[in-house]
Amino acid sequence: MEEKEISQAVIGRLPRYFRYLGELKDQGIERVSSQELSDIMNVTASQIRQDFNNFGGFGQQGYGYNVEYLFQEIGRILGLNRDHNLIIVGAGNLGQALVNYGNFERRGFLFKGVFDKNPQLYGKKIRDKEVQPMENMEKFVETNQIDIAVLTIPKTEAEKVAERLVGCGIKGIWNFAHVDLRVPEEVQVENVHLSDSLMKLAYNISRSRSSWEA
Amino acid sequence: MEEKEISQAVIGRLPRYFRYLGELKDQGIERVSSQELSDIMNVTASQIRQDFNNFGGFGQQGYGYNVEYLFQEIGRILGLNRDHNLIIVGAGNLGQALVNYGNFERRGFLFKGVFDKNPQLYGKKIRDKEVQPMENMEKFVETNQIDIAVLTIPKTEAEKVAERLVGCGIKGIWNFAHVDLRVPEEVQVENVHLSDSLMKLAYNISRSRSSWEA
Repeated sequence: MEEKEISQAVIGRLPRYFRYLGELKDQGIERVSSQELSDIMNVTASQIRQDFNNFGGFGQQGYGYNVEYLFQEIGRILGLNRDHNLIIVGAGNLGQALVNYGNFERRGFLFKGVFDKNPQLYGKKIRDKEVQPMENMEKFVETNQIDIAVLTIPKTEAEKVAERLVGCGIKGIWNFAHVDLRVPEEVQVENVHLSDSLMKLAYNISRSRSSWEA
Repeated sequence: MEEKEISQAVIGRLPRYFRYLGELKDQGIERVSSQELSDIMNVTASQIRQDFNNFGGFGQQGYGYNVEYLFQEIGRILGLNRDHNLIIVGAGNLGQALVNYGNFERRGFLFKGVFDKNPQLYGKKIRDKEVQPMENMEKFVETNQIDIAVLTIPKTEAEKVAERLVGCGIKGIWNFAHVDLRVPEEVQVENVHLSDSLMKLAYNISRSRSSWEA
């Protein structure tokens, strides 16, 4: 299977397919046609067929798609067939919110440690993890096979922390700091720039307002 | 100025331009060439020129771009030249993190109220706002000219709350609930699906792993 040629646009849609298929599965639905998926997902049926063709199709003429199989297969492609060990750097509200959000664990994203530079937080428990000082980070990453670090720290500190994480072999950074990190290309970065998303919403509101006024 | 024709792809890039221009401005830099912007933003200079041409260019031959002017102009296009009044629905960790994140206020996004269905939270102060019961929401939206509601509630409740918000005239929903909301097209929705973003990271890690192993 030639997974390397899949475009980032398709990849970007896979988690959404995965989510909808998971819901069908939870409802006990065993098979689904591209047309049915199209109706609930608000994507064209031909887009769905095209996307699934990237992975060899999965579908059978006249039967549609097997929900369980498709769910497992997309999960496997997304790398969800194995667990990921995570640390959180930054034990503020956002970091705590992420640790406490149980859904990630269900998908195999396991929070193994929480770090902060504020000594007043050391030892404080977030879920069942004690906040540790930043000095412990490298050793912890190496001894606990951590592959993903979640950065919920101010942008002024993010670059330096990212460098340290790269130095101890981190594979991916889930970056909530409002800065674009520069890391070697073998390290994957996924940014969640909340302000950018809010500004886009503001733009769409003001555009819709001016089209109403026009 | 024909703002209506601008593609969502360009719009999606504007907040990032806005962020970098804000940083240049903070550094006291008055002008910048598309090449300089290209170097720091890791986007081609021709992409930058093309994007800015959507709004009439802003640039002068041999001078480059005036940072302050460009910053103000992109801010205006993004609708940041006026304040937005927000409420948060869901006073959990994520809701609290958003209220406490001062940067939004600097950009004119003003948190006016916080709502939750948990009576134990009523009256609890988040920043300087008391958590209010859900029953107060509609009246509050109407009397305080709220244009954006931030949903930090479970997906099982998000649809119903969104309906109520649409009913009382909300203009935009910033949706953190893990569900795609169905709202009338005059209501703008911007989704932040955190699990989708994390899965995309997992995919890129597993792809990069298999290309190393290959």
